Amino acid sequence: MRDLRVTVWNEFRHEKSHKEVQAIYPDGIHAVIAAGLREHGYTNVRVATLDEPENGLPQSVLDETDVLTWWGHMAHGEVADATVDRVHQRVLAGMGLIVLHSGHHSKIFRRLMGTSCSLRWREAGERERLWVVSPGHPIAAGLDPYFEIPEVEMYGEHFDIPQPDELVLISWFQGGEVFRSGCCFTRGHGKIFYFRPGHETHPIYYHPQVRQVIANAVAWAAPVKSFPFAYGGGRAINVKEPLEALG
Amino acid sequence: MRDLRVTVWNEFRHEKSHKEVQAIYPDGIHAVIAAGLREHGYTNVRVATLDEPENGLPQSVLDETDVLTWWGHMAHGEVADATVDRVHQRVLAGMGLIVLHSGHHSKIFRRLMGTSCSLRWREAGERERLWVVSPGHPIAAGLDPYFEIPEVEMYGEHFDIPQPDELVLISWFQGGEVFRSGCCFTRGHGKIFYFRPGHETHPIYYHPQVRQVIANAVAWAAPVKSFPFAYGGGRAINVKEPLEALG
Amino acid sequence: MRDLRVTVWNEFRHEKSHKEVQAIYPDGIHAVIAAGLREHGYTNVRVATLDEPENGLPQSVLDETDVLTWWGHMAHGEVADATVDRVHQRVLAGMGLIVLHSGHHSKIFRRLMGTSCSLRWREAGERERLWVVSPGHPIAAGLDPYFEIPEVEMYGEHFDIPQPDELVLISWFQGGEVFRSGCCFTRGHGKIFYFRPGHETHPIYYHPQVRQVIANAVAWAAPVKSFPFAYGGGRAINVKEPLEALG
Amino acid sequence: MRDLRVTVWNEFRHEKSHKEVQAIYPDGIHAVIAAGLREHGYTNVRVATLDEPENGLPQSVLDETDVLTWWGHMAHGEVADATVDRVHQRVLAGMGLIVLHSGHHSKIFRRLMGTSCSLRWREAGERERLWVVSPGHPIAAGLDPYFEIPEVEMYGEHFDIPQPDELVLISWFQGGEVFRSGCCFTRGHGKIFYFRPGHETHPIYYHPQVRQVIANAVAWAAPVKSFPFAYGGGRAINVKEPLEALG
Repeated sequence: MRDLRVTVWNEFRHEKSHKEVQAIYPDGIHAVIAAGLREHGYTNVRVATLDEPENGLPQSVLDETDVLTWWGHMAHGEVADATVDRVHQRVLAGMGLIVLHSGHHSKIFRRLMGTSCSLRWREAGERERLWVVSPGHPIAAGLDPYFEIPEVEMYGEHFDIPQPDELVLISWFQGGEVFRSGCCFTRGHGKIFYFRPGHETHPIYYHPQVRQVIANAVAWAAPVKSFPFAYGGGRAINVKEPLEALG
Repeated sequence: MRDLRVTVWNEFRHEKSHKEVQAIYPDGIHAVIAAGLREHGYTNVRVATLDEPENGLPQSVLDETDVLTWWGHMAHGEVADATVDRVHQRVLAGMGLIVLHSGHHSKIFRRLMGTSCSLRWREAGERERLWVVSPGHPIAAGLDPYFEIPEVEMYGEHFDIPQPDELVLISWFQGGEVFRSGCCFTRGHGKIFYFRPGHETHPIYYHPQVRQVIANAVAWAAPVKSFPFAYGGGRAINVKEPLEALG
Repeated sequence: MRDLRVTVWNEFRHEKSHKEVQAIYPDGIHAVIAAGLREHGYTNVRVATLDEPENGLPQSVLDETDVLTWWGHMAHGEVADATVDRVHQRVLAGMGLIVLHSGHHSKIFRRLMGTSCSLRWREAGERERLWVVSPGHPIAAGLDPYFEIPEVEMYGEHFDIPQPDELVLISWFQGGEVFRSGCCFTRGHGKIFYFRPGHETHPIYYHPQVRQVIANAVAWAAPVKSFPFAYGGGRAINVKEPLEALG
Repeated sequence: MRDLRVTVWNEFRHEKSHKEVQAIYPDGIHAVIAAGLREHGYTNVRVATLDEPENGLPQSVLDETDVLTWWGHMAHGEVADATVDRVHQRVLAGMGLIVLHSGHHSKIFRRLMGTSCSLRWREAGERERLWVVSPGHPIAAGLDPYFEIPEVEMYGEHFDIPQPDELVLISWFQGGEVFRSGCCFTRGHGKIFYFRPGHETHPIYYHPQVRQVIANAVAWAAPVKSFPFAYGGGRAINVKEPLEALG
């Protein structure tokens, strides 16, 4: 499992332009997320960023990716539609996708969900406490009944997503809100996990439980080798011969 | 409930070009679906078709529609993207949507689902038997444990949709397939029901149980008057003042 | 809808023995819940209590009940198993059941859920804020994005229930916890709603939004007239004649 | 994963009394199910049967079981209530449970589901075809879009279970019925998979895809090491000290 091919994607803009972000993530948020995965035993982790050719995600990279993690915030609109198309098709064909924090508003997450994926938010450096509501779920492995993050950007309900297939974590915020923070979905053959924590101005991706959850989610989202996805490009299958004789 | 404002949308092309379809639906499939709703007591039913201005669905019509039913097949690509945008926003804001048969491949259904919405199919005039798997669901009202349709186009699994929030009906086909034929979803404030039966070359929308299910689905999909949808156009809400004092 | 036959069941013990409870609910919690339903237009509301013959729920009462609301706390163990059996069979046959607050530990709720239905709790008179996470659900009708209750007993996660079919409300508590406070389930033909608010030492059932939610839930849980429940007493159905000829 | 501690439980009565069953399962159904798991690489498989002391499932055996498979049919009523209590508590604490075929009517499955778990059935040796509806689910690993079993006992809808958290397989039957044949549930910390195929008079547990699914299901149902189940015996947790100061 730990030899899954993981690609950590990052928009990688705040880190170039904001000094306070550079101080926390000098090599980019992707470097720290990748380090967290390696810490949890993943041996096959690469990174990709927005300003690389084809947004760092040409077909060849996607074809060799089992699970993709996604962090974006200020430049969602700059991700090429062709990139979104490629990622979308790969998810339907089985690639796992872990959408982090402000990735809720990314083109790819909104396309997969079919909703606005919008929410309430506040930047006040308040406390968050994440409660496990599905302790038997593999993404909860290694967790206590809750864990805390001392200073965060708040995300609050109503979070406009389809009801998750499985809800693993709910956040409490000091300022009075709650949020569905760990949400599992399946689209096509692919599994998707939305995980709320993260922000460019707080050192969230160094946090041990945050790293634990991301590592768990990658394992959970691994592709399953059943029959291949048959509907690439939206085609249907005409089964001319019935399986049973029609009387 | 029976004064809900229902708009029955139809592509209305097969009926103009195919004699066998004209024979079954001389005034269009929409006329027969609307008649079925009126038979079940709906008093406020209008129709709209693809070739009307703005595809028959200008903002003014959508604003006055509580539940929209959708039938399309050969001309999905001709529905304007602006029309799809308008319908999408109205569903998120609470309008119910009943997607019928070949509407599974419509732009609006695929956008709301986030998947290919594709499937296996066969035209052989075989028998279908629809089994109720959620007898306590309002869409099952008035049904027996199963009902039959003598001659249908077959749709078979794998049907590439997100797992329905509630699965109400499963079809058995003479030729050997099964299908999730009655599927409930919520997106934003809006409720969506996919219902499989229907085809232009069989008199499906005269069938009493088919009419019963569509009438039930319209009632189920009625908008709920909670707080208004807040995320039109994808905007988020910045809650600058916390609800609780931050210590 | 407002002529549904509703039975409001109450253990009715705290009100007899605790002065502070008498002060809030002089005629019993059931009287106040019933008043709230009448306020919302229900015309056919009766009450029943533990110490009546057959716990106030003989077969004749259950047979004439469309939706039953349940409040119990200190005497769950005194509800006769025969009463639980009768209620259980009626829910499977289609009767709606609204389980309130400490009813989470009632015999009937635990039997229907199959889990311990246990939770964390604290009596400290703290603030609760209930957030709507399914604004399109009929149980959310008339609600704003959240509502508050000034002083409550806290219930916290992990709440040991099966994942709800639909989650409508999540609570935030001043002391740091969250809770799935409005949970929909279906068992057999019957619909079940668990609603957290309520306690004997706080005037919760006078609260306008609490009354709104209970009134909404009763309408949602109304029995659906599909085919009758066929498996009373656990029997199976031997379909000796196949529906299709076996070749 | 393949060193999970699996216990294969069998009622083991038909095999002693019915010659035709002996001919198919001379060492008992459990021996063949265990052989199938070993074929798939499981190295730590033991068996247990009804007529052993404590029904073969004393606390010591359950404490050392990660996943339990259950086959019973003619003697559900002879399983001691104390055995059901022990298995129930172990499932809530995290043990996986795979319920096979006629186990749908076992005491433990009915207790975990809260419903009658009843269904329609017919013994006519007809053909069954199982369709994968969740190709991305780990229980579908290694499967084609469908697989067939030439001669089976039929189980048909309505199957009176709670809506599964995930539905993996739907069966088509020659005689005209459908059935939800592969159903995932979570109760407490434990995962449960109901799998329809199997009967004492057909050699179902030699079938390669049936063995594949059971092997997959065991891996999926493995316990997750999050925090321990806290509610043994139904106790609740009084959190006297709030996590946040109450103002």
